[in-house]
Amino acid sequence: MSEIRKHYFLEEHCIIASNRGKRPSAPKACDEGKISSSCVFCHGNEDQTPPATAVYKDGEVLRDNDDQRVTGWDIRCIPNLFPVLSPDAEDVFHPDFETKKGYGFHEVIVESPLHKSRMNLFTDNELLLLMQVYRDRVMYYQSKEDIRYVSLFKNWGKKAGASLEHTHSQLIAIPLMPQELLKEMQVIDDLDRCPYCEIIEKESGKERQVFENRDFIVIAPFYSKVPYELWILPRKHTSHISGFDDRLLHSLGKCLKFAVSRLDATIPELAYNYMLFQIEKPNYHFNIKIRPVTSIAAGFEKNTGIFINPVPPELAVEHLLNRK
Amino acid sequence: MSEIRKHYFLEEHCIIASNRGKRPSAPKACDEGKISSSCVFCHGNEDQTPPATAVYKDGEVLRDNDDQRVTGWDIRCIPNLFPVLSPDAEDVFHPDFETKKGYGFHEVIVESPLHKSRMNLFTDNELLLLMQVYRDRVMYYQSKEDIRYVSLFKNWGKKAGASLEHTHSQLIAIPLMPQELLKEMQVIDDLDRCPYCEIIEKESGKERQVFENRDFIVIAPFYSKVPYELWILPRKHTSHISGFDDRLLHSLGKCLKFAVSRLDATIPELAYNYMLFQIEKPNYHFNIKIRPVTSIAAGFEKNTGIFINPVPPELAVEHLLNRK
Repeated sequence: MSEIRKHYFLEEHCIIASNRGKRPSAPKACDEGKISSSCVFCHGNEDQTPPATAVYKDGEVLRDNDDQRVTGWDIRCIPNLFPVLSPDAEDVFHPDFETKKGYGFHEVIVESPLHKSRMNLFTDNELLLLMQVYRDRVMYYQSKEDIRYVSLFKNWGKKAGASLEHTHSQLIAIPLMPQELLKEMQVIDDLDRCPYCEIIEKESGKERQVFENRDFIVIAPFYSKVPYELWILPRKHTSHISGFDDRLLHSLGKCLKFAVSRLDATIPELAYNYMLFQIEKPNYHFNIKIRPVTSIAAGFEKNTGIFINPVPPELAVEHLLNRK
Repeated sequence: MSEIRKHYFLEEHCIIASNRGKRPSAPKACDEGKISSSCVFCHGNEDQTPPATAVYKDGEVLRDNDDQRVTGWDIRCIPNLFPVLSPDAEDVFHPDFETKKGYGFHEVIVESPLHKSRMNLFTDNELLLLMQVYRDRVMYYQSKEDIRYVSLFKNWGKKAGASLEHTHSQLIAIPLMPQELLKEMQVIDDLDRCPYCEIIEKESGKERQVFENRDFIVIAPFYSKVPYELWILPRKHTSHISGFDDRLLHSLGKCLKFAVSRLDATIPELAYNYMLFQIEKPNYHFNIKIRPVTSIAAGFEKNTGIFINPVPPELAVEHLLNRK
């Protein structure tokens, strides 16, 4: 049972999710082979998870049912066994404070049937399919009743919060718009032109650019909160992943692969989170932020919200592109 | 050399502090005895740090000088060897983006000469002295030219960002008011009455109260971002630590000791951060927030700013007070 509690007087929320206490505390060790008998995300172990909500197989989208699971899949979307929010949440009530029931959806996107696979190794077709799945699943949950935001993110590595090492992304659909995005949107709405378009103009082809193709650029942003932070921005102003056709999705997948491959090559075993930021409003500019985990946000950050970053992005680029 | 960079278009800042890269990456192991030859904070090793800016000894406040260090001290305030900001920062310039030089102060408050000491073991006199030092040092830096905020915090435990285990607090004086506090202040200014005074009214003597004395209450807040989060609030509306006389400081110290002792007794070796939140404006209500580190803020938190807390504060109180 979860509930969404509002701050006493600020427009901030937290989720009290008591059932999450039960989830495995440490990543399970998996075998070296292609099928790991202990990993619930591996192919062959489909019956160890709840029925999949969407199974991508040979260009088709299928569903599991209670007593039969689709096998031989490419990508498998399953409800999280320890969901943060749930579609059948019960009402909660606290006489003195604002709260609402923990309604929402929490899905795991298992990106490959193979335990040892990782984005660095994905083929072009695999990249395209993963991006298509991102688009499909975000749009699917976005259309659900009372859902205001769909958070799509990936935790890679224990230090970034991944509790299982088999490559996967997660999606949490929530019944409110996050304050962070609302705040950003308010600022953007007051500006004459899109500030992300301006960032592209200023950073494109300059010292902090890490990668580019026809459709996207990848930069180590001037304002980098953490070492080796990377942003991926579409050149053409687009608000939401639903605005990308397959060519653009393919292009986006290549940027992501380049980024995580370079991070991994530069600092082996680096843990990171990446998150899609998007709003279905014309003024917003879709972006992906990749935040590696190299240090701890400590008392100063928690007191001021100001991050201390010991690696200037200009130096990070030198490292990432092997120039130094 | 550090610099303070502004976000491309939001009122947010980060500090690019390249010299911090040099700081020790792992806590140094120290001897079991009273004096650890390897710990720079231990008494007897005064010459291994920069000269102290303030040394509290037998009721007096002294200073080191370059070639002689005060020994036999009770509390010692020293410039951080790897400062995030520095009083002699040099100008920086980026043609396209907003930035300012890394001007500020970064001080370590070594809370005891003894390596094995910790707040749980402090006597009443030691608690009072530490709170007096907090007040003194905050006021000292608050009066420095161009300083807008003095962040005082403690990182306890490796997971909370403490790089040395000898008990210490830190103070970073910065040339800007943190956005988080400004935002809070704006909301407070628009309200008819102080929302923290209202919290005290609503939480006092109720299920989420952990401790109280004549002057303060300690609560596990209804809105708890992390497991076992605790807030300390003065009953009498006071904006800033400069408003506390010695009796109140003593009372505050006792609350802090109670809180960290209960945290430590409930979850041995628990890491935590505590931070003082204060503004020298009559409407603000001084508070200390203690945030234990039990899990990782992962992709969802970084995408939405919404924290997932698996331990409801009501349950945390049961644990902390040994009721369950």
